[in-house]
Amino acid sequence: MAIMDTDLQAAAQLQALLDGPHAELREQTRVTLSQLGLDKAEGLSRDDYRDLVLEWTREVGRTGDGARSFPLAYGGQDDPGGRVATFQTVGHSDLSLLVKMGVQFGLFGGAVHRLGTDKHHAAYLRDIGTLDLPGCFAMSESGHGSDVRSIRTQARYDADAGEFVIHTPDETARKDWIGNAARHGRMAAVFAQLDVAGEAQGVHCFLVPLRDENGSLLEGIEIEDCGDKMGLQGVDNGRIRFHAVRIPRDNLLDRFGSVSEEGVYSSPIASPGARFFSMIGALVEGRICIGGAGLAVARNALTIAVRWGETRRQFGTGLERDTPLMDYLTHQRRLLPAICESYVLQSAHDHLNASYVEVLNGGEGQREVEALAAGLKAVATWHMVSAVQNARECCGGKGYLAENRFASLRADSDVFTTFEGDNTVLMQLVAKTLLADYAAEFEDLDAFGMVRNLTSRSATRVLGDIRRSLKRKDFLDPSWQAAALEFREDRLIDSLARRLRTLVKEGTDPLTALNRCQDHALATARAHVERQAHELFRNAATTPLLEQVRDLASLSTIEGDRAWWLEHGFLSPEDSKNLQKQVNDLCAELRPHALTLVAGFGIPDALLRAPIALPAS
Amino acid sequence: MAIMDTDLQAAAQLQALLDGPHAELREQTRVTLSQLGLDKAEGLSRDDYRDLVLEWTREVGRTGDGARSFPLAYGGQDDPGGRVATFQTVGHSDLSLLVKMGVQFGLFGGAVHRLGTDKHHAAYLRDIGTLDLPGCFAMSESGHGSDVRSIRTQARYDADAGEFVIHTPDETARKDWIGNAARHGRMAAVFAQLDVAGEAQGVHCFLVPLRDENGSLLEGIEIEDCGDKMGLQGVDNGRIRFHAVRIPRDNLLDRFGSVSEEGVYSSPIASPGARFFSMIGALVEGRICIGGAGLAVARNALTIAVRWGETRRQFGTGLERDTPLMDYLTHQRRLLPAICESYVLQSAHDHLNASYVEVLNGGEGQREVEALAAGLKAVATWHMVSAVQNARECCGGKGYLAENRFASLRADSDVFTTFEGDNTVLMQLVAKTLLADYAAEFEDLDAFGMVRNLTSRSATRVLGDIRRSLKRKDFLDPSWQAAALEFREDRLIDSLARRLRTLVKEGTDPLTALNRCQDHALATARAHVERQAHELFRNAATTPLLEQVRDLASLSTIEGDRAWWLEHGFLSPEDSKNLQKQVNDLCAELRPHALTLVAGFGIPDALLRAPIALPAS
Repeated sequence: MAIMDTDLQAAAQLQALLDGPHAELREQTRVTLSQLGLDKAEGLSRDDYRDLVLEWTREVGRTGDGARSFPLAYGGQDDPGGRVATFQTVGHSDLSLLVKMGVQFGLFGGAVHRLGTDKHHAAYLRDIGTLDLPGCFAMSESGHGSDVRSIRTQARYDADAGEFVIHTPDETARKDWIGNAARHGRMAAVFAQLDVAGEAQGVHCFLVPLRDENGSLLEGIEIEDCGDKMGLQGVDNGRIRFHAVRIPRDNLLDRFGSVSEEGVYSSPIASPGARFFSMIGALVEGRICIGGAGLAVARNALTIAVRWGETRRQFGTGLERDTPLMDYLTHQRRLLPAICESYVLQSAHDHLNASYVEVLNGGEGQREVEALAAGLKAVATWHMVSAVQNARECCGGKGYLAENRFASLRADSDVFTTFEGDNTVLMQLVAKTLLADYAAEFEDLDAFGMVRNLTSRSATRVLGDIRRSLKRKDFLDPSWQAAALEFREDRLIDSLARRLRTLVKEGTDPLTALNRCQDHALATARAHVERQAHELFRNAATTPLLEQVRDLASLSTIEGDRAWWLEHGFLSPEDSKNLQKQVNDLCAELRPHALTLVAGFGIPDALLRAPIALPAS
Repeated sequence: MAIMDTDLQAAAQLQALLDGPHAELREQTRVTLSQLGLDKAEGLSRDDYRDLVLEWTREVGRTGDGARSFPLAYGGQDDPGGRVATFQTVGHSDLSLLVKMGVQFGLFGGAVHRLGTDKHHAAYLRDIGTLDLPGCFAMSESGHGSDVRSIRTQARYDADAGEFVIHTPDETARKDWIGNAARHGRMAAVFAQLDVAGEAQGVHCFLVPLRDENGSLLEGIEIEDCGDKMGLQGVDNGRIRFHAVRIPRDNLLDRFGSVSEEGVYSSPIASPGARFFSMIGALVEGRICIGGAGLAVARNALTIAVRWGETRRQFGTGLERDTPLMDYLTHQRRLLPAICESYVLQSAHDHLNASYVEVLNGGEGQREVEALAAGLKAVATWHMVSAVQNARECCGGKGYLAENRFASLRADSDVFTTFEGDNTVLMQLVAKTLLADYAAEFEDLDAFGMVRNLTSRSATRVLGDIRRSLKRKDFLDPSWQAAALEFREDRLIDSLARRLRTLVKEGTDPLTALNRCQDHALATARAHVERQAHELFRNAATTPLLEQVRDLASLSTIEGDRAWWLEHGFLSPEDSKNLQKQVNDLCAELRPHALTLVAGFGIPDALLRAPIALPAS
């Protein structure tokens, strides 16, 4: 390892930026994770691996991470921002542990915390944080993946008994992919359609006991294992069917809706639609967390590839015999822009985390938080897929050996693109939020009307500035980079709204119109997330090295979609060619800092583990 | 399954096109594979899985496939083209079986067949074809992945004993990733540096016995397992060290160089460089086969995703409740262009296979075959990576279940991008071949000088025609599509050559110059392969449906790199926007044929196996 090529001081600065306000907590988590003995999972049977992951989850939970976001009164730290940060740090370790923690503390605990009231907090949160009560988050159903409003599990109130009857009417209503269900869960937060005295009250969440203290299934509960998955074998995903299971009235998590003993429904939110979105919005933390974890996974892969690229000498295209792979332009192009973009996306993640905490504390901006959580989850996890694939290929055959981690990095993380909201669906959600300002022109469109609160950007606000900047050739000017990304976002929102309006005016039904513009909507959402992330990072790029990171990230992002700017007159053909040369030049300039940049990711060797990335012993 | 949506007659026509001249052989292979019982591999230990794969390999070998390319006199069929075709068909089944067959019949058998002479053929080919002699192809070394000329295994001739002494001098010379080595191989074709009386004669290939008939390692042979891999657990890859192992003089595969009993070296090819390239060129079949297998893997993934996309109904973006996923534009865009490109790349594979056989029979064009084999292997396997990823995401959580095959499709095939030549290195090889015509201007550049035989395209040949076609807006005119792809290829070769010449004239050393242009070289190679593939398919697009396939494949290929055509004045900004609309329209037009298009892939259910892609039982 050419460790002399790492500028330790610069790496420490970079890491301080990435660690952000939760640096101390992240460091504690790294120490805890480094001491777990992650290699113990090797060669275990599936059941033994799952039990080991449960034990790890308990150990991490004991450090306070389990209950970190819960109220002080119930063993917690009242620190959701800290939890989001440490969760991301766990993304550098075993991803089954990550997901198990997410299910137990984030989803199950989060449902009790955010959808329940004091009585639930008092009864359960402490035991959830210590894992004395392992639980599940039973939302998804076989027939309804990304469509929670259409779930079909029934929760009928029986006023005579003062109980809810939870029931699975058919196979499409079977709860599917439920983590912690197949082996360890003793209780589940179950989403079901509430029926009170024959009246449908919409989706609510109920606590349903699954197993007794000995782990035996309770009456009426049927659970099967989902079977082998691509990865995450350490997580016991299962399918649950409920056969008229009776639970006490108090087991309804009743923050957003309750049922009196006599069977009268009431809710602090009058509109059923608003009530549903409040409930779902309260669970946004999971989506924030997965985006952050995706960034962590990408960094593991990029670190391994850069360290190996410095070590491995390869003849082949003609350079000197002892040329490290990192000296090749193709290698630089596959790794360095992704490394820089990793830094950029972290700024957005940190901002999102801080905004989320503000909203929890009563601040404004819930819609923005939900939109950025959705968009960043999609952009970050697609970034991860691409980074892991490129990093693996950059390591050749070595990257194909299981010991070098790409196999598990990829197989375990692949589901990030489709769980906690399918990326494509999430990007459309972002686009709809962006269209909110145009909603007045689409009064007949419920699909747009539901998101009106965003104070959106004016599509024409900066055009004047941008047109002026078209004369400038200095790609390294951050205000040019900003103008380019803002121009794209504004124009895409504007043209998307115009296209939809025209289609609808011509008589196309609104939903068909939306589908006709689906690619446009996705591009708009991506433009929005990228603009926002780069804007946030730009403010943080306070050293010459970070300015180079900013430049390469911005310009390679623009380069990747440069056809768009060409099509809209923002780049001339000559500009566009020069842009690519500039990206090459920046790769050459940042190449000597490659080891420093990945050292800034701050991943301990005990978590990285890949032999090709570790100093020779 | 909306099986009524499959036009069986059209599907049969499509399959006939894909099956090509070897349709009957392919069908036999499909039947053989369907009867193997591929599900038997589930849940087996690694060793048992490997033994099962050996047994399968033997069964397929018995049908004649093992020796198909060997001479009639030695149990073969003298039909290398048939072997390439059936190998591709095996790519629809278990990929460990595919690779095991590739190692045994293709690489080990191919080395004996193509580098050996009659005495070797007579002694070994029959037993290789029946798997009575399981063997290895020991080329790669730990320190020299893509750089065969620099391998360091020694083969010293001991004239007194009339033997070669095969020796591993150090760890970088350890043979690595050798299939069939860890468990089953009894002999290996070992590439080593020949030393005769103290004179280095370059890389030659030697047959070295590894194990006796009981499977015990012979003296001086040290083998260890490579350990767990990302996939292909059914292949026993190993590392081999030779400790002064003595083999008879006859064990040199001496088609391109021999050593007399007295220790005099002779070769039919005077130049050591030409001799090396003849030897490597004789082994091109492996590379052709991997490209073909990559196409098969992509088709499996696309078939599963389309069938599920027709079955699965998903609310979410606003269309009607019972809208199949395939009706969504994003879904169409992720799957349909890849399906069409699959058809296009098959034309190139078939052409390559036919040209390869012609060259074997004494025809012209070896350099073109080598270049296309390299380029198509890279383009086809990258196409595979992208198709499998998109298809998996299109299947959501279902795609993450191991039973639905994406886990193994991806993990097993991932190494295709880096073995049999790293894709990036291969693309540079293509670019160097394309530069051959410019070599005269670079007389001081050995790197270019080595490939002068190609009659290359003139970079300015078609510019006049193309400029005229710039006025045309009809993207559906195949001559416009042709002109676009030819223009890009020609301009890229031309500008690459000019850039290199300028750099060298300015004093940059040639190898640094090449590295500075590495991204340009890769783009050039891709442009070449895509132009060639689309040209070949264009001639085969003889029905209205195939014309639509041609259009969507061509236009989505151009769309993906449309910035290039914008930069070079071939597309106006308005053209470029219209091109994207045209791709959307073609997606809508081909959408009703989606099931027919994948039915044309002709993959039997017994090979496809994914429950989400099979008719409900």
